[in-house]
Amino acid sequence: MSKEDIINLGHGSGGSMTRTLLDDVIFKTFSNPLLNQKHDGSILELKGKIAISTDSFVVSPIFFRGGNIGELAVNGTVNDVAMCGAQPKYLSLAFIVEEGLKIEEFIAIVNSIKATADRCGVEIVTGDTKVVERGKGDKIFINTTGVGVIHPKANISMERIKVGDKIVINGNIAQHGMAIMSQREGLEFESDIVSDTTNLNYIANELLDQFGDDVHLFRDATRGGVASVLSEIALDTGKGVYIEEKNLPIDKQVSAACEILGLDPLYVANEGVFLAVVDQSVATEVLRQMQTNQKAKNSMCIGEITQSNSKKVVMESVIGGKRIVTPLIGEQLPRIC
Amino acid sequence: MSKEDIINLGHGSGGSMTRTLLDDVIFKTFSNPLLNQKHDGSILELKGKIAISTDSFVVSPIFFRGGNIGELAVNGTVNDVAMCGAQPKYLSLAFIVEEGLKIEEFIAIVNSIKATADRCGVEIVTGDTKVVERGKGDKIFINTTGVGVIHPKANISMERIKVGDKIVINGNIAQHGMAIMSQREGLEFESDIVSDTTNLNYIANELLDQFGDDVHLFRDATRGGVASVLSEIALDTGKGVYIEEKNLPIDKQVSAACEILGLDPLYVANEGVFLAVVDQSVATEVLRQMQTNQKAKNSMCIGEITQSNSKKVVMESVIGGKRIVTPLIGEQLPRIC
Repeated sequence: MSKEDIINLGHGSGGSMTRTLLDDVIFKTFSNPLLNQKHDGSILELKGKIAISTDSFVVSPIFFRGGNIGELAVNGTVNDVAMCGAQPKYLSLAFIVEEGLKIEEFIAIVNSIKATADRCGVEIVTGDTKVVERGKGDKIFINTTGVGVIHPKANISMERIKVGDKIVINGNIAQHGMAIMSQREGLEFESDIVSDTTNLNYIANELLDQFGDDVHLFRDATRGGVASVLSEIALDTGKGVYIEEKNLPIDKQVSAACEILGLDPLYVANEGVFLAVVDQSVATEVLRQMQTNQKAKNSMCIGEITQSNSKKVVMESVIGGKRIVTPLIGEQLPRIC
Repeated sequence: MSKEDIINLGHGSGGSMTRTLLDDVIFKTFSNPLLNQKHDGSILELKGKIAISTDSFVVSPIFFRGGNIGELAVNGTVNDVAMCGAQPKYLSLAFIVEEGLKIEEFIAIVNSIKATADRCGVEIVTGDTKVVERGKGDKIFINTTGVGVIHPKANISMERIKVGDKIVINGNIAQHGMAIMSQREGLEFESDIVSDTTNLNYIANELLDQFGDDVHLFRDATRGGVASVLSEIALDTGKGVYIEEKNLPIDKQVSAACEILGLDPLYVANEGVFLAVVDQSVATEVLRQMQTNQKAKNSMCIGEITQSNSKKVVMESVIGGKRIVTPLIGEQLPRIC
């Protein structure tokens, strides 16, 4: 198989073209004893409570400043498993490729998946490759499903959130959405904004090591941004959420780009930002520990859970006024992840 | 949400349109304590060795005689987990929907997924919904990833196959591929052929109950058909595979349709056919037990593993000659599953 080749329908047939693609690219790259069984699935052992999460990735463009769809597909699912309070261990990997994708691009994505999986400490154990005709897909879509073992000290759920809990964020918001937007066809504008895509499993795990069940909730702020996570918390708990705009970490260039395009950064997607809702007794310590981590040096306590304003998110603005942060309704920026 | 509505990009935004779609359709249909956590993932317990398998489904048309893409997506992954020797328990479910799909069709597919999952004894525990613009997908693609617990008596792998093992098939071949083909745009022809899509987990489990590690391999014959499974066995074991054409169960109408279109039924996809490679000492009993099962009443012993003809599949034809069954190379019929 030459790098100049393109993927065609035969690569999805289940015949020898599929086998060659798998042997030359997939099995070679991800080689591990579980995947090498080459069965319809993989057989593995996991002890204790398990978290499972799935996501399909349809981001466009597939290569963007700071990452690509493959890196996103690993980090995204690793983070969802981590947000359940688990250490992710294994991923499944399923491609839907549009006929015509360059083999070279496919290989670049596969290599990036491998490097990201290694960084996250997860193994690709089973997979699938389908090919659709030109115009029936868009280059490549990727599904990953992850499983991991729940941290022994974790006890994470919406029900555990109580009035007075503090909300801590790990870093600058709106990076990913604005990085994609700056490269989106028809919207391209000069910027150095890079996606924040990264894996959050180690930092989440460290917080559980240290603070155990004083961590009441983890949630990463992907599609719909920080506003959507806060709205969900308010709606699902029936309590109020109060945040201060001045404490929201945001890069100046990102903030300026949002302003030019008329976007509220609170609703813009992130791929490496999470919120931790923690008991107020440990909030200061949580923040201190997070700030020592390179991936969370911009951590801030952005607000708290309130008795008042049930089911609402209220933000105190920089200039002192208060406004209600409503849930995002429709689409702000399609195919961001 | 009215049934006349269509899916649009807002339904994939992560905002309140997404939430409404999920609450009104997904959570209502699949309601179970694990899914109802509404977290980024689901937390569950599985004891023992686990099998995991993933598949994306891109079949076109999405509704066909004998099933639809939703039913296929459940049966397909359930079967892959079952072929590992496991009883499937939980599925993840991820949609990539093309803008413009009728809500009515989406609901029909979701309902079919629910009914099929119930039949298989599996629960949908986590999911994802993405929406892509018109012309960037094709109505709906579905990924399911399944996990299940390995049967205590199972010991299934290519390495266990030995010379003299018998190859048993559970039913008529080429049904699914010919059902799809008869309805494919541009190819439509009169026929009553229905897809054989069904779940194989209970029958596989019964065989393990009864015959334990005398079952050396299970493999379902989906993309690439029976020929591709046999080729894989020959290539991966380095042994020969010998089959007799007269023992291959096939419906007359399917056989005739294949002949008219110039297709070899051995390469046509199935969605409810599997091969069991079993120790010769139990082959007669295996066949007898299978034939008592409604889903396997047409079971046949189609051949055996040989020392000779290493890495090749040899078929004795109905009229007595022998031919080599070569692996499928490229694409016979795209998007069959």
